[in-house]
Amino acid sequence: MKKIFVIGGDGFCGWPTALHLSQLGHEVTIIDNLSRRKIDEELGANSLTPIVSMDQRLEAWWVLSGNRIRFEELDVAEEYDRLECLLDTHQPDTVIHFGEQRAAPFSMKGPNEKRYTVDNNIRATHNLLAAVAQLSTDPHVIHLGTMGVYGYDDDGLEIPEGYLKVYIPGDDRQIFQRDILYPTNPGSVYHMTKSMDQLLFQFYAKNDLLRVTDLHQGIVWGTQTAETRLDDRLINRFDYDGDYGTVLNRFLMQAAVGHPLTVHGTGGQTRAFIHIQDTVKCIALAVDNPPPRNGKVKILNQMTETYTVRHLAKLVSRISNADVAYVDNPRNEAAENGLRVSNKTLISLGLDPITLEKGLLDETQQIARRFAHRFRPEMIPCVSTWTDRQRPGVLKGAHAA
Amino acid sequence: MKKIFVIGGDGFCGWPTALHLSQLGHEVTIIDNLSRRKIDEELGANSLTPIVSMDQRLEAWWVLSGNRIRFEELDVAEEYDRLECLLDTHQPDTVIHFGEQRAAPFSMKGPNEKRYTVDNNIRATHNLLAAVAQLSTDPHVIHLGTMGVYGYDDDGLEIPEGYLKVYIPGDDRQIFQRDILYPTNPGSVYHMTKSMDQLLFQFYAKNDLLRVTDLHQGIVWGTQTAETRLDDRLINRFDYDGDYGTVLNRFLMQAAVGHPLTVHGTGGQTRAFIHIQDTVKCIALAVDNPPPRNGKVKILNQMTETYTVRHLAKLVSRISNADVAYVDNPRNEAAENGLRVSNKTLISLGLDPITLEKGLLDETQQIARRFAHRFRPEMIPCVSTWTDRQRPGVLKGAHAA
Repeated sequence: MKKIFVIGGDGFCGWPTALHLSQLGHEVTIIDNLSRRKIDEELGANSLTPIVSMDQRLEAWWVLSGNRIRFEELDVAEEYDRLECLLDTHQPDTVIHFGEQRAAPFSMKGPNEKRYTVDNNIRATHNLLAAVAQLSTDPHVIHLGTMGVYGYDDDGLEIPEGYLKVYIPGDDRQIFQRDILYPTNPGSVYHMTKSMDQLLFQFYAKNDLLRVTDLHQGIVWGTQTAETRLDDRLINRFDYDGDYGTVLNRFLMQAAVGHPLTVHGTGGQTRAFIHIQDTVKCIALAVDNPPPRNGKVKILNQMTETYTVRHLAKLVSRISNADVAYVDNPRNEAAENGLRVSNKTLISLGLDPITLEKGLLDETQQIARRFAHRFRPEMIPCVSTWTDRQRPGVLKGAHAA
Repeated sequence: MKKIFVIGGDGFCGWPTALHLSQLGHEVTIIDNLSRRKIDEELGANSLTPIVSMDQRLEAWWVLSGNRIRFEELDVAEEYDRLECLLDTHQPDTVIHFGEQRAAPFSMKGPNEKRYTVDNNIRATHNLLAAVAQLSTDPHVIHLGTMGVYGYDDDGLEIPEGYLKVYIPGDDRQIFQRDILYPTNPGSVYHMTKSMDQLLFQFYAKNDLLRVTDLHQGIVWGTQTAETRLDDRLINRFDYDGDYGTVLNRFLMQAAVGHPLTVHGTGGQTRAFIHIQDTVKCIALAVDNPPPRNGKVKILNQMTETYTVRHLAKLVSRISNADVAYVDNPRNEAAENGLRVSNKTLISLGLDPITLEKGLLDETQQIARRFAHRFRPEMIPCVSTWTDRQRPGVLKGAHAA
């Protein structure tokens, strides 16, 4: 059993991960600045599901499981010395780093949000790496990346797990071969920070022989895991607002309250998805399988299915009879793209994915309908536009909120 | 004639650039936090050449040339609002961004220097881009990058100007072709920040159609330009300390005081070089040739010659009769590498390079010997080691300081 730090352990992925690892018998410490709760206040938004205080969460878990999770309120981007001290004192085997601002629309709202996203995310990652390089402790660092670093400029090539073998014709008919980081093409400031993170990991793995696993995750859907389901005080976040709500949550919420499903543009954007239950399983697999100390970051694609947004809307419509409405796309992105992704490593380690086809109905009944009384329709529109050339994704006419 | 901001206009490249552009008739504003002077104090180091205050520099230039250069003391990484306001008020045609911590050994001294380098450099670049994207003003952004982003893992391929055409075999015998940013392989935290800058430029050029030129510069040698030579109050920096002194300055200084030239490792490291006079000419060429607004960063290689460190030592030894001493290499890098670089764009625009063979003697007589009385031998050793596995580049025995 391992000693594990979960940075960002109060967030949507971090919290169920901390519980799952604790359930498996690991000794878990959550490190979090509670920024996700503060951003809710700033945006006037809220999780559909009611989230209790960290103290209440941890006490409930202790009572139910008999396992203690330690909590340190600490801003990894701002409090380097405390971070270094914690690492030195506790000597964790594994540090899981979720401590980043994770919403693309939030990161594109304006200069302050762009700057916060860059400053927070880059400094959080770099402070962690600088501290680990400085100390004799040598934890395996696991980072949550994103499929978005690869970009969506599909030309039929299957996206490999992080690295690409390329051939380069030189002068004099010579052909050069290189194994390179997959060329990055992020579509928002948020995604850009994860591309920049890749360069931080690449350098510290090479120079300091740090062991790093970077998990390029698809869009997460679902709310509950085996552990968060045990008690309402352990429930996970369900965000549906225009900034933090991902596409499926927003469709489910719209369906639950009889609002048309608002598809941005043509809905031809293909994206990768994964259920939150599979996320926590993947992270446990990553914990158990650190890379060798060989100067190279281990990169895995943490996703299980691809869908177009249009197809997702149809799935939700089928179980809810909701209408589908096509609205302006606030994002600066290709209207249509294909997407083929290799996820062979996690599958080969035993991941057995939950599919949208099977899991969607549960999610609708257990979350969207159950908590519909907490729904605030004014939070639905996506008003953060990527540039002055885009328009908000707002329904016009009879159904407009 | 253009209105030009020079961020970092008090530094080694920024100051002569500001003067040269002013001499050409451009309206120049220097924006600088004077951090280079503060780092000197922190390190207990100094420029061999005496540097007067910014007020004295600008007054001397006004008297001599009749041209006014405006100065704003401002930290671009910390004072976003003032930066945005200045850009909005003055609507510059061009913003030249030198505002980054530029010494690789300094960036590797310890966690504080690593963190300062990342925090300052990334935030400075991103604040500038976020402000330009926010405002209706639309300056051409020129950035000083580094040849170091390409790395030194030579396999004989000529390094192109920023982009590489690669071929990727897919399944089913299909071959995919892509034009990608040259895969980056930085060798220090400093170089890493310039690699990360590339991703910032890539994103803002694509999303906001900013016009950006990134100049990947070699190691600069030489001290004076036509303008800095006009008066001792205009003289440029000559750094020779183990952190900020580049290899040629350090050899020249050692030769001037009868110290053996300390070559790190075998001296087989091949690097790209350019004279400071050519630097300012290249930047003037970049000012005159902004890229089209096509979503793509214009990348040029700003270098004129390649030499091994060993060969450089021989050149200096030849004109000075200095001994050459091989010492430990404090850097974590390949002992030997080849390097072939394309610099065709700047040559095609009319750059006529100053060669080391021709310019070296002048530099020795006019700077290293003239100011030898200001030399402090204790500043010479390179004591910043890349990891615990490296040793400082210190001469042992009779000649050790």
